[in-house]
Amino acid sequence: MTNGILAMSEYIEHDREGITVGLVEKRFFTFAEPPNEMKLDSGAKLGPVTIAYETYGELNSDRTNAILVCHALSGDSHAAGYYTEKDVKPGWWDIMVGPGKGIDTDKYFVICSNILGSCMGTTGPSSTNPLTGRPYGLDFPLVTIGDMVEAQKVLLDHLRVKKLLCVVGGSIGGMQVLEWSVRYPDMVESAIPLATTPRHSALAIAFNEVARQAIMADPNWHAGHYYSRERPDHGLAVARMIGHITYLSEESMREKFGRRLQDKCDFSYDFDADFQVESYLRYQGRKFVERFDANSFLYITKAADYYDLAKDHGNGSLVKAFSKTKAKFLVVSFTSDWLYPTHQSKTIVEAIKRSWGDVSFCEVEAKWGHDAFLLPNPRLTSLIRGFLENVSNTL
Amino acid sequence: MTNGILAMSEYIEHDREGITVGLVEKRFFTFAEPPNEMKLDSGAKLGPVTIAYETYGELNSDRTNAILVCHALSGDSHAAGYYTEKDVKPGWWDIMVGPGKGIDTDKYFVICSNILGSCMGTTGPSSTNPLTGRPYGLDFPLVTIGDMVEAQKVLLDHLRVKKLLCVVGGSIGGMQVLEWSVRYPDMVESAIPLATTPRHSALAIAFNEVARQAIMADPNWHAGHYYSRERPDHGLAVARMIGHITYLSEESMREKFGRRLQDKCDFSYDFDADFQVESYLRYQGRKFVERFDANSFLYITKAADYYDLAKDHGNGSLVKAFSKTKAKFLVVSFTSDWLYPTHQSKTIVEAIKRSWGDVSFCEVEAKWGHDAFLLPNPRLTSLIRGFLENVSNTL
Repeated sequence: MTNGILAMSEYIEHDREGITVGLVEKRFFTFAEPPNEMKLDSGAKLGPVTIAYETYGELNSDRTNAILVCHALSGDSHAAGYYTEKDVKPGWWDIMVGPGKGIDTDKYFVICSNILGSCMGTTGPSSTNPLTGRPYGLDFPLVTIGDMVEAQKVLLDHLRVKKLLCVVGGSIGGMQVLEWSVRYPDMVESAIPLATTPRHSALAIAFNEVARQAIMADPNWHAGHYYSRERPDHGLAVARMIGHITYLSEESMREKFGRRLQDKCDFSYDFDADFQVESYLRYQGRKFVERFDANSFLYITKAADYYDLAKDHGNGSLVKAFSKTKAKFLVVSFTSDWLYPTHQSKTIVEAIKRSWGDVSFCEVEAKWGHDAFLLPNPRLTSLIRGFLENVSNTL
Repeated sequence: MTNGILAMSEYIEHDREGITVGLVEKRFFTFAEPPNEMKLDSGAKLGPVTIAYETYGELNSDRTNAILVCHALSGDSHAAGYYTEKDVKPGWWDIMVGPGKGIDTDKYFVICSNILGSCMGTTGPSSTNPLTGRPYGLDFPLVTIGDMVEAQKVLLDHLRVKKLLCVVGGSIGGMQVLEWSVRYPDMVESAIPLATTPRHSALAIAFNEVARQAIMADPNWHAGHYYSRERPDHGLAVARMIGHITYLSEESMREKFGRRLQDKCDFSYDFDADFQVESYLRYQGRKFVERFDANSFLYITKAADYYDLAKDHGNGSLVKAFSKTKAKFLVVSFTSDWLYPTHQSKTIVEAIKRSWGDVSFCEVEAKWGHDAFLLPNPRLTSLIRGFLENVSNTL
């Protein structure tokens, strides 16, 4: 098993972010070649399926140290390290995943794969439809959080990982964590769902729906078949801006922007961006369209809206759903997260307790809103480190 | 002075909403004919200006019973009653304004006018630019909350109203109330700002900016010059949906929609509206574009974002700004309003107190979010009724 760490010793000298896993490589695994397509929750079939993934650290000889990291809406397989020495930014969770970090790659073998339906190397609506030779567009079948987990399971089989010391992830990644714990109870020793919910509130669905409407209202969207022409960048940018508002807290926005003006002393009295918060959102929108596919945004948000752990696994009862799991849980919410507020995490905790499960819970003090799980937070790091050590020691 | 009530006796028989002011008429008043244009806060000039307005009740002989009602973003001059006997819906605040109601038209002379920059009869970006003979579009100058108040002042002069017993309004209407109290302290006996703020938070600006971006991203917007062609309906619908989310509370959405499906037993596995909340938002978007102008949405939201009472009237100090007013205040916030949360109303109350002003404050228990000020609420009605009686009695 190669470990995804290339030429680390040379790299560390150039490292601008402290110790990291160094240079890493995105890999691909393809399965479900027709006629053996993957059967989806909707009943539709999909194949072939390619999964983009990365690994960090080494799988130990008894294969007991594997940790699966699940990413959120716009994430990818690149959780840690750098692809090249020229990369300015490391992977999206480099603060947590690396040598000596909260998820210590000196101890654990970490796997992160791009989710089904995304556009970062794993099969999604922008991939080629083998029936037409052109991108799927909306001919891509709707996928669920469960389907994403199924694809990860096939990847783990390929990597000969039979047991996960832990599954960890935030937001939609947290939904995958919950799903793993009940879908493959014998494989999951422990689970860390961060800043997540067992199902979307009407408010969360509403934000997603308006974001989708922004994309579908863009005439360049062309009912999803835009790959050979101009893309629905305007709609996707607006969708991203809507998302960004929900990722921040009122407090963090006040502190970060307040009513400060952007590069001017007084109002412009036109529709330019006057306030820094306006510039920030426009910038986030512009930046996002360079790297993300509008259809993938539609598919992944819909999967999140559909997700309903109690309905899917407990006949409507969350307690019943969690009675299937054998995992130890560490559930973490963040004080200023108003997208998936603490009371939703507490619903998870209560249900696990009532199903006689093993659960620790922490509401972490953080002012950065839903995004807090992605940002440096010593409390979160030490919580995860301690929990993983505990789970390892009691194997 | 006619009182805007026509054929009320015949009408009451058909009334489906209890007692109302009956049939009313929208009127128009035009001023600032060139070369005597209105001078705006931005320094630009605007004229002629037409104000659409309605009045209910009668001005008493000593002209001491006039109440100005200020509407919010998408409102109009039609606060109460019906235009025709066939109208299904009465004016937007008919629950509050009428005979025997919280704002009792048997006692008070009520004026409501459409704000400058809107599209409901008052001059705005969809009005004809006298220089071109075509609609202004973005050639319409940016207007401020102060400019809206100035236009209302000219209307009151026209109606020979020298003193206002009260100025009352919610949301952006509440900003006009605050502005009136400091801009014309000798005219305002009392003021009732509801569900409002002395200035927008970064969060409120962010929502408005994304809504504006949704409009401006619509290719039919054509930099505001779309009046002779297809309109930016898609963009405006998305903008409205964004707004609607902020007007509701998480609790009200949970109660109203939860995760209930719309006319189906299971997920569609496509991008139709599966959930009721999705259908509701799409419907609100569709309905809005039938009655509102996209450019007016841009102008009014920008005016709200610019509004900053302390900056405009107190050199940065809210206390200093309020030291100019002589009005008695009733400040009301609503528990579930997260767009203009209670702490923003408390900022108003504190500043009035510290300027030695006369202020009562109430946080009304209401689960409907920011929209609560528009909805039936016995507590709000009795608060307003009592406050007005008190102000009348101490004249």
